[in-house]
Amino acid sequence: METLEGRISILAALQARSRRVEVILLKHGLHIETNEIKELLELAQQLSVPVKYCSIADLNSIAHGVTHGGVIARVYPRARWTIDQLESHLAAQSKVPLLVMLEGVDDARNLGFVIRTAEAMGVDAILIKKHIWDLDPTEIARPASGAFERLPLVQVSEIKDILPLKRLGIRFYGCLAKAKRTMHDVRLARPSLIAIGGEKRGLSGAMRDQCDRFITIPTFGGASSLSLSHASAIVIAEASRQRRVRLDPPTAGQADYII
Amino acid sequence: METLEGRISILAALQARSRRVEVILLKHGLHIETNEIKELLELAQQLSVPVKYCSIADLNSIAHGVTHGGVIARVYPRARWTIDQLESHLAAQSKVPLLVMLEGVDDARNLGFVIRTAEAMGVDAILIKKHIWDLDPTEIARPASGAFERLPLVQVSEIKDILPLKRLGIRFYGCLAKAKRTMHDVRLARPSLIAIGGEKRGLSGAMRDQCDRFITIPTFGGASSLSLSHASAIVIAEASRQRRVRLDPPTAGQADYII
Repeated sequence: METLEGRISILAALQARSRRVEVILLKHGLHIETNEIKELLELAQQLSVPVKYCSIADLNSIAHGVTHGGVIARVYPRARWTIDQLESHLAAQSKVPLLVMLEGVDDARNLGFVIRTAEAMGVDAILIKKHIWDLDPTEIARPASGAFERLPLVQVSEIKDILPLKRLGIRFYGCLAKAKRTMHDVRLARPSLIAIGGEKRGLSGAMRDQCDRFITIPTFGGASSLSLSHASAIVIAEASRQRRVRLDPPTAGQADYII
Repeated sequence: METLEGRISILAALQARSRRVEVILLKHGLHIETNEIKELLELAQQLSVPVKYCSIADLNSIAHGVTHGGVIARVYPRARWTIDQLESHLAAQSKVPLLVMLEGVDDARNLGFVIRTAEAMGVDAILIKKHIWDLDPTEIARPASGAFERLPLVQVSEIKDILPLKRLGIRFYGCLAKAKRTMHDVRLARPSLIAIGGEKRGLSGAMRDQCDRFITIPTFGGASSLSLSHASAIVIAEASRQRRVRLDPPTAGQADYII
């Protein structure tokens, strides 16, 4: 059993039906007449999720952090998609696929932030190498601000498992600091999978072997670098931008900054 | 006196001459023959910074975190620029100014990440409202990965202090979630200041009154949102991209993804 902390994550789990919620624990004396808590409790009632009151000491003993705001839930693990499920999902939608593949993340918070940004930027699913699933799900959920419950997450055991995605016309782009091509030089508005390596080891050899192109984020200054979640945000936002350009051809007034 | 933890931050402080380093503390038995530690100790010697050995227990009692890797420094506070200094700096350089103004940041880590990304993306300086300076500098320095020592930071007491920047032709862009214009619709390759509000309160009325334009990051999905540091990364990277397009007119092969 896992713990979700704070109203946003728990409400997202109920709304997305992403997992079974065993019980919601509220702090004694919590002001339940606010719209935010009301919405949570009404949905819990509809879904027959029990609600119990606890002392703040009991809540703190269960919680990992101090930002739960008096609301905690005991939940079953989040469902993970298989590659087959992802393929069916992508085949059934008309949107041009945009996928992110993470090979290594050292910190649960970083994974949470990548999930949050990816959802906001229109990514269809995040593919995650098996060992990353060992990260603490409570710590992933919090920075993801609800996106952890909504964005499809796909478990990948070995790189060869993702090769069927190429049949859907998806091109694999590997992010490498030293790549000659920048992310601006490739067509990310086409069906794309963006592969991002871990903070320490980068992309695996097996993943590199399957990449169609390698891309980098152009940076200034020798010593400067980007964190994993911020580099991911920048690449994903660039893919999103290219797709938007395709969707909304710029008007004369907007276009003139692009030479 | 402040503390810097870990080799990267301390080496950056020595290299950038950003502040006086009182003493460097090394863990007893630290392997000082690695190139990274050698470089640090050689530079410390050149600058006449004393080096002392301590027990790991002593280091841990001084450190905020556990990622110091056996190297800690006691340092004087980081110098802050005035607006006058910033003006002189910008007037003396040929580069088109790109500034970031932060009005509120709740978390020292987030500020550190913004500083790190801003440096990598070619931002000239970060302007910071006075009260943000109360954040723990050790906690800012760590995620900034050295950029905290190199990127000019300008202290702003009141919004009216930054108005002289308009004389340099710098336009003020305010980031607002509900703005009609996106960041792609404005010319960030021109002299620009990007103003970003705090997680809780957003941009102040005083700042809004001075903005020439408001811009937003286009996102998908109703519930989705971005964290402050990731939203900042995406806007700053967009400014950097527009500048790069100006610098390197795309070749025929690169240009065709832009309709």
